[in-house]
Parts: sequence; structure tokens; C-alpha cells
Amino acid sequence: MNSDFNLTISLDIMGGDKGPLITIPAAIMAIEKMPNLHLILCGDEFFIAQELTKLHQKDNPQLSICHSTETVAMDELPASALKNKKDSSMRKAIDLVKSNKSQACVSAGNTGALFATAHYVLKMLPGVERPALISALPTHDENKHVFMLDLGANVFCDSNVLYQFAIMGSVLAEEVDGIESPKVALLNMGTENIKGSDHIKYTAAQLTNNPHINYIGFVEGNDILSNKADVIVCDGFVGNVALKTCEGVALMVYSKFKTVLSKRLLTRLLGKFFASTIKKLFKSLNPDQYNGASLIGLRGIVVKSHGNASSLAFLAAIMEAAREVERQVPDKIKKKLEQSLAD
Amino acid sequence: MNSDFNLTISLDIMGGDKGPLITIPAAIMAIEKMPNLHLILCGDEFFIAQELTKLHQKDNPQLSICHSTETVAMDELPASALKNKKDSSMRKAIDLVKSNKSQACVSAGNTGALFATAHYVLKMLPGVERPALISALPTHDENKHVFMLDLGANVFCDSNVLYQFAIMGSVLAEEVDGIESPKVALLNMGTENIKGSDHIKYTAAQLTNNPHINYIGFVEGNDILSNKADVIVCDGFVGNVALKTCEGVALMVYSKFKTVLSKRLLTRLLGKFFASTIKKLFKSLNPDQYNGASLIGLRGIVVKSHGNASSLAFLAAIMEAAREVERQVPDKIKKKLEQSLAD
Repeated sequence: MNSDFNLTISLDIMGGDKGPLITIPAAIMAIEKMPNLHLILCGDEFFIAQELTKLHQKDNPQLSICHSTETVAMDELPASALKNKKDSSMRKAIDLVKSNKSQACVSAGNTGALFATAHYVLKMLPGVERPALISALPTHDENKHVFMLDLGANVFCDSNVLYQFAIMGSVLAEEVDGIESPKVALLNMGTENIKGSDHIKYTAAQLTNNPHINYIGFVEGNDILSNKADVIVCDGFVGNVALKTCEGVALMVYSKFKTVLSKRLLTRLLGKFFASTIKKLFKSLNPDQYNGASLIGLRGIVVKSHGNASSLAFLAAIMEAAREVERQVPDKIKKKLEQSLAD
Repeated sequence: MNSDFNLTISLDIMGGDKGPLITIPAAIMAIEKMPNLHLILCGDEFFIAQELTKLHQKDNPQLSICHSTETVAMDELPASALKNKKDSSMRKAIDLVKSNKSQACVSAGNTGALFATAHYVLKMLPGVERPALISALPTHDENKHVFMLDLGANVFCDSNVLYQFAIMGSVLAEEVDGIESPKVALLNMGTENIKGSDHIKYTAAQLTNNPHINYIGFVEGNDILSNKADVIVCDGFVGNVALKTCEGVALMVYSKFKTVLSKRLLTRLLGKFFASTIKKLFKSLNPDQYNGASLIGLRGIVVKSHGNASSLAFLAAIMEAAREVERQVPDKIKKKLEQSLAD
């Protein structure tokens, strides 16, 4: 790590649908915001240097380049990326975390490949079987978030994995959002004790017996955004479907409104006001578009930005990584797990 | 069946949060709409007769009463209802279908008990392992629906069950909504072939090989309402979460709008116009509130109305049952399954 700065983050510059065209401007915005931040830009050295020159940032001491010759394609199989792309920008960004040359990495690249590579290189924290993808979603109360995991890193999760996710989610809500004793819930197809699969019922029993977790019971899909819980736990298949369903409904409401608003001149004019509200709401329901999702449970911080993220979205993902470094999230998860397993 | 009428439906009068106060007025509206309809009202004879007298319907030949001494409670365990409530209004309504005295039954009662009792009494169609709860959801195009199953009758479904659901859903979309060669999709956590669990991939292979089903591949949560598919298939856990997530997001959008609209006098006045649009949209995202969900795959027609359904919602469920009788849905499912299994 560069000793002039107390915060170093490595970026997968080539990842995402638009790669350096998005990630380099985001990097520059990030260092302008944070004078203590040093960014290591992983990717094609020649190309990155050329872009930095264009943007008059060639000799900025807050930026350095880590050359890589390969790029993981967005549709590449995770196992193939892990095996064959050892000199990819994504792998380099993760390797720098492993070798303690950076404190976190951010990528907008192929989610499966990022997951597999981070899992393989960084390894799990003790007591964690699987990493989880977690993100903060908006709620009815615009000052509050709900942290939801897993959002798609794992297809199916057994009761032990769901239990570990609940603990990890609780730590993230407490450390990143400053929520004291976060309310943790399991997503289920009913709120009664008899509902759902055996493994969910078993996780519920485990959580009820953990005095370090504020477990509040089962919630249903209609309570994801209702502020009932601060952390909602489910397997990756269900979490991914629920998150994308939120996006789909918000998009439908938005498009229906646009239709209604365009029908008459008066409403067309007034509509501009409402359209911006709906648009904001729609964007807020698509969280990985604007703040990144974290891959937690690893011995290192990895933040995933959306594949088609804008520079602002990639910047938000860098800021999320910086927050997790400052709050030492992996250490806190490790401690909470030790505490929970010791009882 | 009463020979004066060519359509007979049995109703669980005591089921639902408000029981007869909702179901009896709905029954009267239904017979007023359909002169060929005969309804058998299952429940407490004395109470029902008293209500019919109040409503000047005591001697209406379109209505008859089937006395029952018990009621299934909304929170009763399905196994307990099945074992101990053999003289319940719900059981009577189903028994009438079994003995061919009615062609379909409708209940707003305990979903689990209805499912268990209907499964036990009516039995499955040949080739069907599990019944599914299916409903029509709104889409971006207000003239089109998407049929989604399973919405919560089964927690987990293996590949054979999902395959049967796809066939059953296709028949319902074709017969009830008149869609020719309905587009059938599997709900997954990605659209690429490599995504999801092994059993979903296996179902996809089975559907690809079935020339009688227009299988279009995987869809994600954001495509449930987008009109990409006419039928979306998933297990009951995922379907239930997705459906309730739709309701939750719609409710959040509705409440956020109300907040925005109430802020200024001008927008408060104009808001009335927008509020009704949002309200309509919100209601349409809560389909079991207004049209009932069908339990399909059984040797008989069973329609489930929402527990807190209004009379209009219960009426819609009766009309749905009537449509399924007219279109002979169970027979059509049986034929399509035979056709699919013969190949």
C-alpha cells in the first residue's frame, strides 16, 4: 500500500459493459472526493495511461496502474474465468487484496466469475461456508434501508448457511448503516411457525437461540420494503427473484404512469413533476445500479457494481468499499461469528 | 345437480375472514348475473336461511343450502382440519364436487386446509403429482395477463412437478384467457442456460423436447409482468415470495405517491386523479383480492378467494369457477398431459 494514503482500493478497470469508459471517470471522481484514497487501476496499462493522459491525470499520485493482459468476458463461465484468466484485470484486483496491497476491490464485471475468483483467492472467514451477495434496498421510510441477502451468489442455502448469512447481514447493517441491534428476519411464504421448508424452520430455531442477534421471525414478500426488518435473509434464488421483481414492478408502475401522464396536455405538463418522483423511486428500487452489492463472508472486501453501471454508480460502489474498509467489516463479521458459535 | 340449471357450483359460505357477510351477498350477485347458475350454499343452515330471508331470497330456486355443523378456522393446521372437520362447510363444498352434485367449489377459507382437503377428497388427475395454485397477474399491456404457478401450494417442486405445472399453466392460459399457443417460461435467477438449480435445468430440457408446449426459456423476476411470457412456472416458495413482493412494491409506490401528493395544495387537488390510477394499479397487483386463484391438477375445479375478500372479489372467484366449468379445464389438462406423456 502507498504510505502517503491510508486507504487503498483496487479497481477492475476492464470489467462491466462499458469498462474503462465508465470506471476511469469514476476513479477520478473518487479520488477528488477522498484525499486519503489511493486507487490501483487494474487493466491494460497502455490503454489506461492513454485515458489518464486525456483526462490530465497521468501523474496523479493518488492513482497507479497494475497491468493485466486479459479481460473476463461478461458471459464467460465462472470456472473457465478462474482457470484460464489468471492475468485478468478482475483477478489482479482481487490478488492485490489477498497480498495486502489493497484493502478492498471493486468490479462491474461478470458476477459469477467475480464470485468464484474471490472465493478461491481470498477464502472464507472462519465459520463461514459460503459468501453472500448483499445490498441495501429502499424502504417506505426514505431514511432507512433494508439489507437483503443472498441476492444470487448461491442458488440454494441450507440452514447453517442461512444462519451465517443472518449474522453477517446483522453486522453489515450495524456497521455500515449504524443501526443498533438490527432487526433480522427470514423471508418465508407465510409468517406462521408452520410455514416454509424444514431448513428455514431450523434456521429460525437457531436464530431464536442466539442472544447476539435480534431475530424477529418470518416476513413475507410484501414486507421486504415495509421497514419491519433491517436485515432480510433468504437463499440466492429467492433473493434474486425478489430483487428483480421489485425492479419489474417499479418499471411497470413507471411506464403506466408515463402513459397516463401523456394522455392530456394538462397532465402532460404536470406529469413532469410526478415523473421525476417515479423515476427516483424506480432507480432506488434497482439498488445495484447505484450503490453496488457487497460479497461478504470473505477474508477481504469485494464490492460488485452493476454490469451496466454508470460512472456515478461505479463511484458509489467505490465509496461503499471505502466505508467497509473504515468499519473493518470482515473483522466485525469474524468476531460476531465467533461470539455466536461460542455460545 | 338441479336439472333446471346447467351450471352448479358449491360455496364454502363460512370460510374467510368475514364468512357469510361476504359470501351470501356474492352468491346473490352471481345468480343475478347468470340465470343458468345454481349455487349450493354450504354452512350453518339456520344462519344462512335467516340471511336469505333478510335479503328476500329465501325461495329463490337458484339457491339451495347444504347444512354443515363445523367451520375450519383460518389458523387451523391443514392436517387437523382434514382429520377433525369432516362436517365443515369447506369439506361439504368439496364433497359435493366429488359426488358430482356440483361442478366446482369456491372457498375464501384457510388455504392450507383447502389444499389438503381438496387433494385428499378429489385426488389428482392422472400424471399429476401435486396440485398448484395459479392466478392471472396484470402485465404492462393492460389487455393481457400472465398466469403464474405455483403461488404457494407447494414449498418445493422437483423437475417433474415443474414440468407438469408448465403443461397445466399452458392449458389454463389457452382455455381461460383464449391465448393460442401460450408462451411458457421458467422463472430463474438468470436467463443463461447455465443459471439456476439442476432441477430447473432438467425441466427446461423436458419442456424444450415437448412439441405441444411453446416453451420460450428462462425469465427473471423483472420479466414477470413484462409480457414476455403468458405462463410463468416456479415452485410455491418462489412464486409466493414474488407475488407478495409485487404487492409490497405497489403498496410502497402508492404510499410514496400519497405523501408527495399531500405536500402542496395544488398537488393535493391534482393528486386525486393520480391516486385513483395508482390505486387501480395496486389493486391489480393483488390478484387474489379480486379474481381468486385456482387450485389446478385435481379431478375437480376448486377456486380459492382471498381470506379478506370483499363480496365483489368473492363474486369474481365464482365467475372464475364458472369459466373453468364451461371450458372443462380439468379434462383439457388431462388430455394435454396424456399427449405430452405419450411422446
